[in-house]
Amino acid sequence: MTVVVVGAGLSGLAAARRLVAGGHEVVVLEARDRVGGRTEGGRLTDGTPVELGGQWIGPTQDRMYELVAELGLEWFRTHNDDGLLLVDLRGRQSRMAPHKGAVPRLGPFALADLGQGLLRFSRLAARTDLERPWESPDAEVLDGQTFASWIHRNLRTPSGRAYFRIACEAVFAADASDVSLLHALFYSHSGTDLETLLSVDRGAQQDRIVGGSVRIAETMAAALGDRVRLGQPVRRISNDDSGVRLETRGGEVVTGSHVVVTLPPTLAGRLEYAPALPSWRDQLTQRLPAGSVVKCYAAYDEPFWRATGLNGQAASDRGPVKVTFDNSPPSGRPGVLMGFVEAGDARHFARLSPDDRRRAVLECFARYFGPRALAPVEYLERDWMAEEFTRGCYGAHFTPGVWTSYGHALREPVGRIHWAGAETAAVWNGYMEGAVRSGEAVADRIGAEVAG
Amino acid sequence: MTVVVVGAGLSGLAAARRLVAGGHEVVVLEARDRVGGRTEGGRLTDGTPVELGGQWIGPTQDRMYELVAELGLEWFRTHNDDGLLLVDLRGRQSRMAPHKGAVPRLGPFALADLGQGLLRFSRLAARTDLERPWESPDAEVLDGQTFASWIHRNLRTPSGRAYFRIACEAVFAADASDVSLLHALFYSHSGTDLETLLSVDRGAQQDRIVGGSVRIAETMAAALGDRVRLGQPVRRISNDDSGVRLETRGGEVVTGSHVVVTLPPTLAGRLEYAPALPSWRDQLTQRLPAGSVVKCYAAYDEPFWRATGLNGQAASDRGPVKVTFDNSPPSGRPGVLMGFVEAGDARHFARLSPDDRRRAVLECFARYFGPRALAPVEYLERDWMAEEFTRGCYGAHFTPGVWTSYGHALREPVGRIHWAGAETAAVWNGYMEGAVRSGEAVADRIGAEVAG
Repeated sequence: MTVVVVGAGLSGLAAARRLVAGGHEVVVLEARDRVGGRTEGGRLTDGTPVELGGQWIGPTQDRMYELVAELGLEWFRTHNDDGLLLVDLRGRQSRMAPHKGAVPRLGPFALADLGQGLLRFSRLAARTDLERPWESPDAEVLDGQTFASWIHRNLRTPSGRAYFRIACEAVFAADASDVSLLHALFYSHSGTDLETLLSVDRGAQQDRIVGGSVRIAETMAAALGDRVRLGQPVRRISNDDSGVRLETRGGEVVTGSHVVVTLPPTLAGRLEYAPALPSWRDQLTQRLPAGSVVKCYAAYDEPFWRATGLNGQAASDRGPVKVTFDNSPPSGRPGVLMGFVEAGDARHFARLSPDDRRRAVLECFARYFGPRALAPVEYLERDWMAEEFTRGCYGAHFTPGVWTSYGHALREPVGRIHWAGAETAAVWNGYMEGAVRSGEAVADRIGAEVAG
Repeated sequence: MTVVVVGAGLSGLAAARRLVAGGHEVVVLEARDRVGGRTEGGRLTDGTPVELGGQWIGPTQDRMYELVAELGLEWFRTHNDDGLLLVDLRGRQSRMAPHKGAVPRLGPFALADLGQGLLRFSRLAARTDLERPWESPDAEVLDGQTFASWIHRNLRTPSGRAYFRIACEAVFAADASDVSLLHALFYSHSGTDLETLLSVDRGAQQDRIVGGSVRIAETMAAALGDRVRLGQPVRRISNDDSGVRLETRGGEVVTGSHVVVTLPPTLAGRLEYAPALPSWRDQLTQRLPAGSVVKCYAAYDEPFWRATGLNGQAASDRGPVKVTFDNSPPSGRPGVLMGFVEAGDARHFARLSPDDRRRAVLECFARYFGPRALAPVEYLERDWMAEEFTRGCYGAHFTPGVWTSYGHALREPVGRIHWAGAETAAVWNGYMEGAVRSGEAVADRIGAEVAG
C-alpha cells in the first residue's frame, strides 16, 4: 500500500526517500509549484543564487552533512573571517572578533550581568528533557512564564537585557514576550546550547550549500521522480482502519495505508479531518504560532564592507534589520548583504509600502556598513508571514503552558496519520537537521508498523 | 446585494437580524444542523431542558436584556439564595454567603494577601483601554508576562494564589500560565471587573433564560426564516472589488457584497481565502487559542443539597470539577447539578474513558454535597474541545504578546470581509453580550458602507 506524504519540504522528502529505500510505494503531495518548503531558491538578476529561506548547517547536525554528501552536494564556510563583527547596542557601535561565544565589549557591570545571565540560562537549558520537555525539572514553573519575564528577573543591566532580547528574536523570530521560557530552554538545548545557535564559527550558521540550500530538496525530489506531485494543496484527510484518503483543493483523490503530515503545526491544524481530530491534537495546533520574519537582500558590485575591516555581520538593538550576514557567493562577486527583519519589527514592516520597506532596510545596512549600502544594484525580500503555504518562519514556537499541557500530542499519531516536520524533532528542533531527522524517524516507524 | 454571514451563533444571527431590519438581503451559512453556536440546548430524558453551552446573563449586559425582551423571552434568577456556597480550599471545607465580592473564610494572613491582590488587580484592570488594549498604560510590560507570573509575584500565600488560579480557570477555561496578564486585565474590565465576572448575585451568572439560552438564537433564526441555511460549512471565501464569493464543503456557492465571519478566531483562520489574508490577520488567528472545558450534568430526583443548607455552588482547588452550580429548572424538579471541568483538568479529562469521566465528576459532586451525589438519575456532558465547529470554550484567550503585536487586526476588515464574534467585542468580550454587540456593530458598519 502507498504511504502518502503531505508537503515536499525537507521533512517530507526525507520521509519519502527513506520509505522508497525500504521498498514502499510513496506519493508526495505538495501545495506549491516547487519543492523545498521553508528552503527556497531565488536568483539575482545576474543569475547569482540566493536563499530566500533556511540556509545554514553547522557542527553536530550530523545527518545534514551526511545527507548533503549522499546527494553529491558540497558545502562551504559562511563568510566570517574577512573582518570583525559590528555590534550596535544602545546607540554605540563597537567591533568584535567573530568567535564562538564572544560577547560584546561592554562596561564591567553589564559584562558581569550578561555573563551571569548566560551561565544561568545554560544551566537551566542543559536540564531540559529533549524527548519529553514537559518532564524536565520544574517544567510547570518554567513553562508558566514568558522568556521576557525570565530576562527581566535575571538580568539587571539594559545591555544584558538587550542581548537576550536580540538573541530571542534572532533564534525564534519572536519577541521574548511571545515564547515560553521552557521552550526557549528546550530549543537551545535541542540545538546544543544558546551559544551554538547564535554562532557562525562552530555554530548553527557555520556552513552553506553550494548552489543554495534548496539543492538538497531539489536533489531528493529529482530522485523521487513523479512520486512528487506539485500544485496539489491537500484539503481533507479521511482515516479509518482500512487506510487513508486525501482530497486536494483541485479535487484529486489519493489513497494509501498511512499519511505523514509534515506541514508546520498551524497549517496542519487547518486541514479538514474525518473523523475530526481528537481535542488535544486540535488544541495543540491552535497554540503553535509561526514566527515573524522577512528576509532581505541587497546586492552590490563587491562586498565593500570587507575593505573597512568588517565581515558583514551586524547585531543591533535597533531595527528593522537587527541582524545581518555577508551572503556573497564564494567568489565574492557580487557582494551580497542579507538582513533579517524579525518579530515585532517584521509585523510593523509587513504593513509598510514596498518603497518604505526597501528604504528602511537600506538605512539599517548604511548605519552598519556606511553610505555605500544605500545604493545597491538590486534589492530583494521574502516575507514568510505572507506565504499562504508557510505563514511564518523560522518555525513555530511554544507559547507558555503548551509544552506541559499538550506536548504529548506533538508526535503521537492519530490512527494512520503521522506527524513530522522540524517542529516535531527532539534534536535540532526547528532546523533543517530536525526536519530531516523527524521525516526519517516517522518513515522508520511506519515501515516497522507495516512489517509488523 | 446580499450580505453573507458565516455562523449562526448569537453574533451572526444578531448581525443578520440588524441587516434585515435595515432592508438588506442576507444569507446566513451555518456549518451545523442547528443554530446557537456556543449556546446549545439539550434535554434530560424526562424532557427537562439543559444548557450544554453558555447560559447566563447579568447586570450591565443591557443589550441582552433588551434582546431577550424583544424576542418575547423571559429570564429567571440563577439558584443562589437557597443556601450557602461551599468552598473547598487546600483540603478544608467552609461555607460562605453567596454575595457579590464575598471572599472565602481564610486566616488573617491569607485574607490580607488576597485582599491586597484583588485590589492591585482591580486597579490595573480599570486602567486598560477597552477599545485599544494595546494602548493601555504599560501595555507592553503587562502583555509580556503570563497571568501566572503576576499571581506568583503579587500573592504570597498558597490560598491567595489558589484563589486567583481558580478564578482564571473559571473565567477563561485556561490556566493562568496560558493567558497574557494584559488580556486577563482587559477581559475583567470589559465585563466590569473580576468580582462581577465571578459573581452570581449582581454578576455575570445572575440570570438565565426560561427554556434555555438557546431560545435566543432559535427565536432570532425563526424570524430570519430560510435566510438561515444549516449544514453548510464554509470552506473558501473569495473577495475582490466587486464582491464576495463563498464555497461550502458541499459545493454550494453563495455570492454577496460583503461577508461577516463570526467564527471563533482559530476557526476563522482555517478557512481558505482568495486572495490569501494579509500576514497580520493570519498570524493573529494563529495566536488566539480557545479555552478547554467540558460541561457536566448530573440529575437527581430533587436538589437534595438545599436541605443541607447548600445552594449547589462549590469552588475548589481540587478537580476535575472545581466549580459547580445548581442548574435545576425553576420548579426545582428534577435537581440538576452542573460542573465545569476546565483548563488543565479538561485536557486530562478528555483522554479518559466515558466511565472514568462520569466517575470522576460524580466523586467531585459527592465531595462537595455528600454521597447522594454518586447516584444520579442521569449523567450528561459536552466536551467543547471535541466539537469540530467550535474547538474550545468559553472563548479564545490572548496569549502573551498578542494584544500589543496584533490587536489592531482583530476587528479591521480585509477588503469586503468583516469580522465579528464574542472575541471581537470591546464590552463584555467573550460573553453573549459581546457576541450580540459585535454582530450588530458590524451590521451597522456594513449598512453605512452600502449607504455611503
